[in-house]
Amino acid sequence: MTSDRRDGRSRTPISRVGFLGPFGTFTEQAVKSQTDLAACELLPFRTVPDVLDAVEQDHVDVGVVPIENSIEGTVNFTQDALAFDYDLLIQREIVLDIEHCLLAAPGTNLPDVRTVYSIPVATAQCHRYLREQLPAAEILAANSTADAAKLAGAATTAGAAAVAPRNAADLYGLAVVASDIADHHGNQTRFVVVGKDRVPAPTGHDMTGIIVYQRADEPGSLISILQEFAARRVNITNLLSRPTKAGGLGDYCFVMYLDGHIADELVADALRALHAKQGGVKFLGSYPAHG
Amino acid sequence: MTSDRRDGRSRTPISRVGFLGPFGTFTEQAVKSQTDLAACELLPFRTVPDVLDAVEQDHVDVGVVPIENSIEGTVNFTQDALAFDYDLLIQREIVLDIEHCLLAAPGTNLPDVRTVYSIPVATAQCHRYLREQLPAAEILAANSTADAAKLAGAATTAGAAAVAPRNAADLYGLAVVASDIADHHGNQTRFVVVGKDRVPAPTGHDMTGIIVYQRADEPGSLISILQEFAARRVNITNLLSRPTKAGGLGDYCFVMYLDGHIADELVADALRALHAKQGGVKFLGSYPAHG
Repeated sequence: MTSDRRDGRSRTPISRVGFLGPFGTFTEQAVKSQTDLAACELLPFRTVPDVLDAVEQDHVDVGVVPIENSIEGTVNFTQDALAFDYDLLIQREIVLDIEHCLLAAPGTNLPDVRTVYSIPVATAQCHRYLREQLPAAEILAANSTADAAKLAGAATTAGAAAVAPRNAADLYGLAVVASDIADHHGNQTRFVVVGKDRVPAPTGHDMTGIIVYQRADEPGSLISILQEFAARRVNITNLLSRPTKAGGLGDYCFVMYLDGHIADELVADALRALHAKQGGVKFLGSYPAHG
Repeated sequence: MTSDRRDGRSRTPISRVGFLGPFGTFTEQAVKSQTDLAACELLPFRTVPDVLDAVEQDHVDVGVVPIENSIEGTVNFTQDALAFDYDLLIQREIVLDIEHCLLAAPGTNLPDVRTVYSIPVATAQCHRYLREQLPAAEILAANSTADAAKLAGAATTAGAAAVAPRNAADLYGLAVVASDIADHHGNQTRFVVVGKDRVPAPTGHDMTGIIVYQRADEPGSLISILQEFAARRVNITNLLSRPTKAGGLGDYCFVMYLDGHIADELVADALRALHAKQGGVKFLGSYPAHG
């Protein structure tokens, strides 16, 4: 099998998909939203690095993990893992509307709820709802929203509930006590499908992810980076500075997501110019943009 | 009491400090690293929003929460809360070296460990260590690293351990089985001290946090923002684009941390120019820079 990462073709069909599990998480929901992935063998993993390891070691063809505005892990963790620890390429993004529900055994009403399981991030996102509606409830930790539903479903005492996705209810014999309980509505999470050597062909509506390591902490160096894109009318849709793992907090790199595909002449030209000017530029992938 | 947020003076001495608890967390360690805060009444809260609420409702004078590279909550959560939900000012930053330890009952050796409690983010940061040293151990969730130590300390079965700060060991009757077990060394977390109406006087080595709302998603608008700072030789040390809670993921604002104080003429002038050009600029505070 030859390996040209930029020829715009996937080498082998996807048959095994790893994802941040267990079944019933928002990540599974993201996988199921993709017709081709939903038809594959789905393998849940416990943590984001477990998913990425499985891809790297060829136990799965691709992995699906949350990367932005996530409620199932930290955004920065996934971002940093792709930046520093793995050499995988993003080949697709999936954006999901997130709806936190309060799930409990059928027949449970809101005033009956005594304990609420979820991951700390999810309970934080429903902070106001829980404080106002369930001020006396005990908040207990779980490893994922689906684990929370599982724990609530297996609880032997009455009044156990979970903050979890709606589709976790059936899986664990629970009913929806309240829906859309997050403090902010319109909550979305961005997931990425990562693989070892696939760059999907350009569709005309693509994104490219890169990491640019900053040479010196001097005023204007980010401008100099951005000018390479602005001069070529390449739009930057997402940007964050991150500490590099090598140094302390003061030593940053920039994670950037651009409109366009590495096969687009203007994008490729900007990256070449940046590479010549800046040194370290890591390519994270080009893939069809969501929506 | 008059309230001029920019006069460079704190109004009242700090006597009550809220922090992300319970006792034994890295956040408590950050509080204790500050001589004046360590001498105050310390009140632990369960979640980041609980800390911020306590400040807003005057139950405490200041609150201490992790904001960057955190292992005790999501960075973005704190950042978004300060950006969108609260009107509090950062008045100090604390940067802490983070050392994850494996804690267990005295006499426990590494091969004896059967279960490991921690928050999902901390176990993810120790992913390789746990996979190699404790491949068979069950990973259980806790609400914080200190809660993990508490659970390990209270466990009735042998072999319960926690990934937690070293100083949680004494608190919960545990011993250090292994130290510095994170996959990446030199792990630091940035904490902020937030208050309602205090801007510390300039020290000559200060930082300023702002949020700039992006008018339109067009190439070059971030450059236009950055140019106001570059023209005045104001260095940007940290920058991230974040979706605004009002819209979907496509609608961004920029969170920026600058070298300098709002009382510095060049910083103030850049912010005025930005305000005139850009519209929404939110001031997050000026405070002494760490180190």
